[in-house]
Amino acid sequence: MIYAGILAGGVGSRMGVTEMPKQFLPVAGKPVILYTIESFLQCSRIDHIYVAVVSDYVSHMKGLLNSEFGVCDRITVVEGGSDRNGSIVNVISTIRRTDSDPDSVLITHDAVRPFVSPRIIDENIDAAIEFGATDTVVPATDTIIRSADDEYIDDIPVRSELYHGQTPQTFRIGWFEQDYFALSEEQKKTLTDACRIFTLSGRRVRLVMGDAFNLKITTPFDLRLAEAIVAERSDKK
Amino acid sequence: MIYAGILAGGVGSRMGVTEMPKQFLPVAGKPVILYTIESFLQCSRIDHIYVAVVSDYVSHMKGLLNSEFGVCDRITVVEGGSDRNGSIVNVISTIRRTDSDPDSVLITHDAVRPFVSPRIIDENIDAAIEFGATDTVVPATDTIIRSADDEYIDDIPVRSELYHGQTPQTFRIGWFEQDYFALSEEQKKTLTDACRIFTLSGRRVRLVMGDAFNLKITTPFDLRLAEAIVAERSDKK
Repeated sequence: MIYAGILAGGVGSRMGVTEMPKQFLPVAGKPVILYTIESFLQCSRIDHIYVAVVSDYVSHMKGLLNSEFGVCDRITVVEGGSDRNGSIVNVISTIRRTDSDPDSVLITHDAVRPFVSPRIIDENIDAAIEFGATDTVVPATDTIIRSADDEYIDDIPVRSELYHGQTPQTFRIGWFEQDYFALSEEQKKTLTDACRIFTLSGRRVRLVMGDAFNLKITTPFDLRLAEAIVAERSDKK
Repeated sequence: MIYAGILAGGVGSRMGVTEMPKQFLPVAGKPVILYTIESFLQCSRIDHIYVAVVSDYVSHMKGLLNSEFGVCDRITVVEGGSDRNGSIVNVISTIRRTDSDPDSVLITHDAVRPFVSPRIIDENIDAAIEFGATDTVVPATDTIIRSADDEYIDDIPVRSELYHGQTPQTFRIGWFEQDYFALSEEQKKTLTDACRIFTLSGRRVRLVMGDAFNLKITTPFDLRLAEAIVAERSDKK
């Protein structure tokens, strides 16, 4: 089975202008998260979609889904965890009520990346089935600098080997269960990225190429950019 | 003495829509590079400004400077090199006709980063005088992933230690002369970043914090963003 987990657990502190978590802010009149969910609904290979939202917004989220999609038995809202992996744990424990297959695949995605393409979703699913885990990336265009002390350069890694992480991150659920629950509480706090856990556990994580439209909406500027993308796409229809 | 080197040697292939190097494209009717040069003219600590442009554009550049600033004895146009460091070499050899002090400081800057602030310029000069070399950076906000084979993740470095490189890069001219001319021709081709040369030579390069406005204009989208920044600033005046 193939499941999607839309991760909207966070409250977001970078937007500044608003109290509302950024995934609920409107773009062309529609909350960001509904664009994201639509992108996954359109993929018929996905058996079920879980949306993890912070507890205060569970009923708000259910209301949004109801008014946008009506009665839809492919979507379930679950309560988010204290961090990204906590939300994944909650999604998996909901999945485990009906499916114990370790090879079932979970495609996890940031709620605030609404413009993920069908190609990216498909390639994530294919790569997770074939290789076990995959991460969506784009090549780095800036020079990246490493400094442990925030004062002097330690190292300027070769740019051609560097990528920016996007999402989806997609994996066999059994892998996550094995690796995450083997971590100490201390490690759980620091290892907030699922692919980082796999990598540190010695597993090979396959790359899938993302694209520039798969942007993460974290600032007021990103919201304006999203408005421009939606306007351009509706012009083309 | 303190010199600025505005590096506009490149022809730019990412813009796509135009044959003209991006540093000459207009923002609110004025070529990008003139905004950049103005940012340095406003700093009275800088004794002289060298602008390195690709040879075909030397006379075009002189014409722009003349019509924007009139007769200005603080600016000299020099021919750019085949890469970034080649342009720096040409600037330094021009400086060396009149100044042989190894401790003279050169603040190098991308021509396509027009909105560098007075604070960033000042802190670059201060840090280069005190520490010998400095690089302008902003903290990384995305997860960065390293993959040598473009297929599997090798490593996900700790994000809190990572930065995006901007410019200026500022240094004692004697340091550059010592380190760059010690490289083989092969190394010169791969080490296109001055601070990377210093780091590999075992020198400590100090960090100066940049900011989001100090963006590099490399795509049509960046040009529109630059238009928005100029419009907002003229509103505030």
